[in-house]
Amino acid sequence: MNNFEWSNPTNIIFGKDTEKQVGQAVSGYSKSILIHYGSDRIKKNGLFDKVTASLEAEGIRWMELGGVKPNPRLGLVKEGIEICRKNNLDFILAIGGGSVIDSSKAIGVGVVDDGDIWDFFIGKRIPVKTLPVASILTIPAAGSEASKSCVITKEEGWYKRPINENVIKPVFAIMNPELTYTLPHNQTVNGVADIMAHIIERYFTSVKNVDLTDRMCEGVLKAVIDNAPILVDEPDNYAARAEIMWASTLAHNDLLSTGRIGDWGSHQIEHELSAIYDVAHGAGLAVILPAWMKYAYKHDVKLFVKFAVRVWNVDERFDDPERTALEGIERMKSFFSSIGLPVTLQELGIPTEEAKIDEMVKKAFEERAGGIGNFLSLKEKDVKAILMLAVE
Amino acid sequence: MNNFEWSNPTNIIFGKDTEKQVGQAVSGYSKSILIHYGSDRIKKNGLFDKVTASLEAEGIRWMELGGVKPNPRLGLVKEGIEICRKNNLDFILAIGGGSVIDSSKAIGVGVVDDGDIWDFFIGKRIPVKTLPVASILTIPAAGSEASKSCVITKEEGWYKRPINENVIKPVFAIMNPELTYTLPHNQTVNGVADIMAHIIERYFTSVKNVDLTDRMCEGVLKAVIDNAPILVDEPDNYAARAEIMWASTLAHNDLLSTGRIGDWGSHQIEHELSAIYDVAHGAGLAVILPAWMKYAYKHDVKLFVKFAVRVWNVDERFDDPERTALEGIERMKSFFSSIGLPVTLQELGIPTEEAKIDEMVKKAFEERAGGIGNFLSLKEKDVKAILMLAVE
Repeated sequence: MNNFEWSNPTNIIFGKDTEKQVGQAVSGYSKSILIHYGSDRIKKNGLFDKVTASLEAEGIRWMELGGVKPNPRLGLVKEGIEICRKNNLDFILAIGGGSVIDSSKAIGVGVVDDGDIWDFFIGKRIPVKTLPVASILTIPAAGSEASKSCVITKEEGWYKRPINENVIKPVFAIMNPELTYTLPHNQTVNGVADIMAHIIERYFTSVKNVDLTDRMCEGVLKAVIDNAPILVDEPDNYAARAEIMWASTLAHNDLLSTGRIGDWGSHQIEHELSAIYDVAHGAGLAVILPAWMKYAYKHDVKLFVKFAVRVWNVDERFDDPERTALEGIERMKSFFSSIGLPVTLQELGIPTEEAKIDEMVKKAFEERAGGIGNFLSLKEKDVKAILMLAVE
Repeated sequence: MNNFEWSNPTNIIFGKDTEKQVGQAVSGYSKSILIHYGSDRIKKNGLFDKVTASLEAEGIRWMELGGVKPNPRLGLVKEGIEICRKNNLDFILAIGGGSVIDSSKAIGVGVVDDGDIWDFFIGKRIPVKTLPVASILTIPAAGSEASKSCVITKEEGWYKRPINENVIKPVFAIMNPELTYTLPHNQTVNGVADIMAHIIERYFTSVKNVDLTDRMCEGVLKAVIDNAPILVDEPDNYAARAEIMWASTLAHNDLLSTGRIGDWGSHQIEHELSAIYDVAHGAGLAVILPAWMKYAYKHDVKLFVKFAVRVWNVDERFDDPERTALEGIERMKSFFSSIGLPVTLQELGIPTEEAKIDEMVKKAFEERAGGIGNFLSLKEKDVKAILMLAVE
């Protein structure tokens, strides 16, 4: 086990009707805030009105900025920064999923910084302060509500790059599973893929003696695997929505990577897919993860056997560990398919000609501090091989 | 799943040599602190000198108060409060295990309160503020380093009662597994029992649809079960010490009880044993838990079957769930014995005459707000039956 430092300062306020507590929760931090969101869905379904009523009851002044899209853009972040500066807003309340929260985090960091905010995303500078950010979560997936991550896409050149710093962890997250009942099927299952990917990326590590976090990763994965299929048939099943929602946070608040170093190669490869073709991140991960695994398993067959046996209940073939490992990967792929996720680039609907794949490979290595992948360090030829395995 | 609120504000600084970071960690909070500890062991082994050197390098003035005993006493707490007040110390650094940290928490709460501090322990008043408290952990067991719990024994009448409030969570915990190499065997295994009890008390719940926390409880238990026996033979095995140490925190920082209500009957019964006979808390739990389980399993046989199958790898007898459940309890008891824990009151060396048992039963219900046990609500006759099951 490696040395580590960990906390979860984000106060999780979880359960039915918790959105009504938002005014009180904000009032300890600010009296003038920016509400940041995506589409008008939250206005049509009454959530926005409920939130502003709760804020106003506490005497909190608010302004709004909607329009966040999946793979949130630097342009809108800059707009948010300007609004906060001009109107002395000193708190950002995100209502939405990972894209809205990431956009809010970027605004929070940008308001208190004088330089070029893109510096933080390409590792040129490290953010050391931010306005407080909090969220009302409506899409369980990215885990951004309690994470140190923030991923933004720069329109000029379509680069998608992250910040990973503790300072940007939100101060609270309001999580009512009922708010996720109306998520369309594809957003629900893309979220599931994202959650599972966050755990799997942490699971595949070169660090030895990490039994406790192994077991926790396996446990959270199993809870997701048991509950996700329920949501396909019963989108308003509170119990299953609650399990998935809480899993989304725990998958990415770094608890599951205490003492270990995750891989993150699949995420980095997927970022190129979604940056160039604007596909949903979760769907992209469902395609890349099995391909990455097929390419990577020989690097540590025993670890893939453990994954197969403990997570996917594969009967271990003690005389054929490779077959056991591959069976685990197949079961994961079948599981993704069974809940309606794409598992090939073709199903994802993006071009698979070699020239297009070469373009993604090239781009994956541009404007990046450090390499791709920790468990398995990838060069251009490796990324290409993984993408080729993902074609069909 | 129930509604819940959760955070882990305590910054965990985990790994080799981390005690050298203490000066820097304290300096953000205070320049005048009380160092609180138990025996002189930390002076003989050099830890105290290392700590004070690190503090002095940051210009931090310190005073000391040693002498904390297992089942920490109210008398010493009051002494600590006086020292802090007289010398304007505004931060408590605990060096030790749960007893020292609990004593420090009580001092922290007491310094900023004008009333009778015992009020907080019998539920008469609720603490709303404290001096910041932090620890350098030397005994992984109680989980007090990141918990909202604090248990103190009042000498007059030997009452042992708790505070459970978020406000008393420590600000940081320095956890170097190497500092636990020299723990004697009995302290090591008592710690293991305490850790397992914290998880098991949370596991047995009447709340339904708590798959995720079920799985995490099972996972942490399995990691403890796999690593504890290593420490019996190899007390200086870093990997196993690290797993147990991190498990001790996660067992009791309330992550594993998010959305569920634990039982805590065994803890409350054990508190009478250790208050009256001053036995080690962990050893007492190893005796009470199996007895409680034998008494409680019929209340929800399926849950005990799950515990047997998932935690203890019992082959499920689908036609005889009771036998499966009982086999799980037996395996736990055998496991405790195998690492050298007592599993009967006789092995614990305390009197088992009926009159003595009646005395414990009576005391368990005195000076207490609320009943005993949530999964299974216990009356006097139930507690007596459990203690009788624990005799031999």
